Amino acid sequence: MDQPNAQKTPYVPLTAETLAPQLSKVPAIADRVGQDPQDWKVVEVGDGNLNLVFIVEGPDGTVIVKQALPYVRLVGDSWPLPLYRAFYEYHALVREAERDPGAVPQVFHFDEDQALIVMEFLSPHKILRRKLIDGEKVEGLGEFLGRFCARTAFRGSELSMKSAEKKKDVGLFAGNVDIPAITEALVFTDPYYDAKMNHHTAELKPVVADLRANAVLKARVQRMLMKFASNTETMVHGDLHSGSIMSTATESRVIDPEFVQYGPFGFDIGMLTANFLMAYFSQPGHRTPQDLGAYQEWILSVIEETLKAFDAEFLFLWTTERTGMLYPASLFEDQGQSSEDFCRDLLNEIRQDAMAFCGIEMHRRTLSLAHNADFETLTDSAVRAPMEARNLAMGSELILRADAIRSPRALLELARQFNAKDVL
Amino acid sequence: MDQPNAQKTPYVPLTAETLAPQLSKVPAIADRVGQDPQDWKVVEVGDGNLNLVFIVEGPDGTVIVKQALPYVRLVGDSWPLPLYRAFYEYHALVREAERDPGAVPQVFHFDEDQALIVMEFLSPHKILRRKLIDGEKVEGLGEFLGRFCARTAFRGSELSMKSAEKKKDVGLFAGNVDIPAITEALVFTDPYYDAKMNHHTAELKPVVADLRANAVLKARVQRMLMKFASNTETMVHGDLHSGSIMSTATESRVIDPEFVQYGPFGFDIGMLTANFLMAYFSQPGHRTPQDLGAYQEWILSVIEETLKAFDAEFLFLWTTERTGMLYPASLFEDQGQSSEDFCRDLLNEIRQDAMAFCGIEMHRRTLSLAHNADFETLTDSAVRAPMEARNLAMGSELILRADAIRSPRALLELARQFNAKDVL
Repeated sequence: MDQPNAQKTPYVPLTAETLAPQLSKVPAIADRVGQDPQDWKVVEVGDGNLNLVFIVEGPDGTVIVKQALPYVRLVGDSWPLPLYRAFYEYHALVREAERDPGAVPQVFHFDEDQALIVMEFLSPHKILRRKLIDGEKVEGLGEFLGRFCARTAFRGSELSMKSAEKKKDVGLFAGNVDIPAITEALVFTDPYYDAKMNHHTAELKPVVADLRANAVLKARVQRMLMKFASNTETMVHGDLHSGSIMSTATESRVIDPEFVQYGPFGFDIGMLTANFLMAYFSQPGHRTPQDLGAYQEWILSVIEETLKAFDAEFLFLWTTERTGMLYPASLFEDQGQSSEDFCRDLLNEIRQDAMAFCGIEMHRRTLSLAHNADFETLTDSAVRAPMEARNLAMGSELILRADAIRSPRALLELARQFNAKDVL
Repeated sequence: MDQPNAQKTPYVPLTAETLAPQLSKVPAIADRVGQDPQDWKVVEVGDGNLNLVFIVEGPDGTVIVKQALPYVRLVGDSWPLPLYRAFYEYHALVREAERDPGAVPQVFHFDEDQALIVMEFLSPHKILRRKLIDGEKVEGLGEFLGRFCARTAFRGSELSMKSAEKKKDVGLFAGNVDIPAITEALVFTDPYYDAKMNHHTAELKPVVADLRANAVLKARVQRMLMKFASNTETMVHGDLHSGSIMSTATESRVIDPEFVQYGPFGFDIGMLTANFLMAYFSQPGHRTPQDLGAYQEWILSVIEETLKAFDAEFLFLWTTERTGMLYPASLFEDQGQSSEDFCRDLLNEIRQDAMAFCGIEMHRRTLSLAHNADFETLTDSAVRAPMEARNLAMGSELILRADAIRSPRALLELARQFNAKDVL
């Protein structure tokens, strides 16, 4: 639980060729894959922005090897990024596994010097964003995600943790500076001015101009940035979008918590909701007219389930596991008073924060550096632009009037309205 | 800027006898006091709750030596308290001196192993609480305090600091666990149930019962505790009451920041306001009827000046020193838009938080462990109880309706109303 250690063995990025001879010396890996590295089949599959990812297959089994690169892969070595993020990802995975058992891949080995995590190979799981583009459904998805967000939010906060332990953890994760800085810039700031790495569909120009002319909206975004950077309410995943979820038709897992930090209760669930809404708005580009309506409604039902499951699980934990210093039973239940109403008050606050974070994520994924495959795979900008415009418009509405979303249904209704609108 | 180091020389608490031979070896001290320890006059004057404090006088000058004790002095060695708090106090003093030059005593020497800080001897300064009990005025007091709160708040936040530096600092101060835990328990929790160390004037029993029966009020206090424990908006002094301020008739300094932590913008100014209000409510026990009205109004004028100076200075720094990542000029001024309204919005939020913290401090100083000399020096409980009852009632009003206090004048008006009320 200390800060990352000074490096002892020099960092060397692995390749498909060097991996087997290197890692077959580690019993925790060899025992799972096979003792003889000659029998290992190694494929590099990293399609993300930041890391090397290898599938390592052998006679005894298959594992994933994820190694951090010292720069942002998407941009190149002009954007260096510290290797210590693997240290934080490892610690995040351990905590997530404790707080929601089975929700994240099992970790078999961690090598801090090599910025390398060896973990469970998920199969036949696919990245959820891909499934949403392909029109595939996942049973129990909303229930799983809402519960994951609620369990990690509640159990990572001082509603549950001992304060000394939580503060120690805040100190630990405060060292993960450069990764949250990416979010602070790309998500909360760049979309709202002419930042160097921005790009957006040309047809959106007038919408973007309106948005940047709106000082009240930008101030609201900055207030949310202040919350993101200063409200250490719980340990958040920090990058919970549909590319950080892997699913089969019936089972899901959350991966890639390297953007972990202490942050607001509503951050993960807000970012997640945004990514479902973007999947929703992009569907006319991916489905046949016959399939479109039903699949879009399925996406909305996942959002509803997620938000409902979040509230239900959070309230359940409030009632059964409130062991931290906040809202102690000594002040309520022990004096014969229920505290459930105050949990609901807090959940209302969390939802308002979540809705504003949601709107901000919808903006940045169409205006800033890292766009979504949901929209980006639609190569015809005449098709893409009207959907992106709806997405931007709903994002603004959520940022400016987060408090008007008093239930999951109100959010779905808003989405349907914007989906039917010609914004451009 | 690392965490406190492992101890190298064993800690030994000083006495008036051992101090001179020990510290005369330190040039930074000997150069200020005198080279020959035989010429030093040492007096222990610690009247606080936690530390040894010595005045060390010699032919060349006088210094203060403050040494932490490994337990709470007020309670005894049954309540151990880590010595590392001196480390945090030292780092807080350094930062406060940078952010508001001249506002805190100059530090001459810091010895981490001995938990010992040698600093400027303030003379003829008196503890402000004592002056308020004695009916003495201090010129420019509100202006000084409001400016100190605004400068430390603004310059310790990501409105001003580089984020990497601020996060490093959050990590550093997150190690100061046990001291904030005192505040969490004594201030935010104990007053609202029958906690072991509580004590209060017997006549207040029905008022206290009403207060504990009010679940909405207690939930509001817990929400503020969540902010106190989780909103790392800026570095706060953490214990800014009239016992942490020393003044002459024309000059003031802030001392004793060992309760330092990252916390909400409104915390210090809220606690401070509470202590002026308690001075105000206790005045009928200290003044002659002829002097009472004018001195009470002077106290109110200090509150008004403090709050006004806070807002004015914060807005000034917003306009001239907004160099952090929050509300960057790139989103506002560089696009031809003023951001001053958003500073005012933030100041409104800060004042609401401050008013709620203020009410909570008013409660705990009459109900929890550590009471105020303002009330405690009134030994006749028949005299004290009605004033304490007014103080409690106004505290509840501030906690429940912090948002109704839309200006400093509204707060003063409320204080005058409660001062004229028979609450018991």
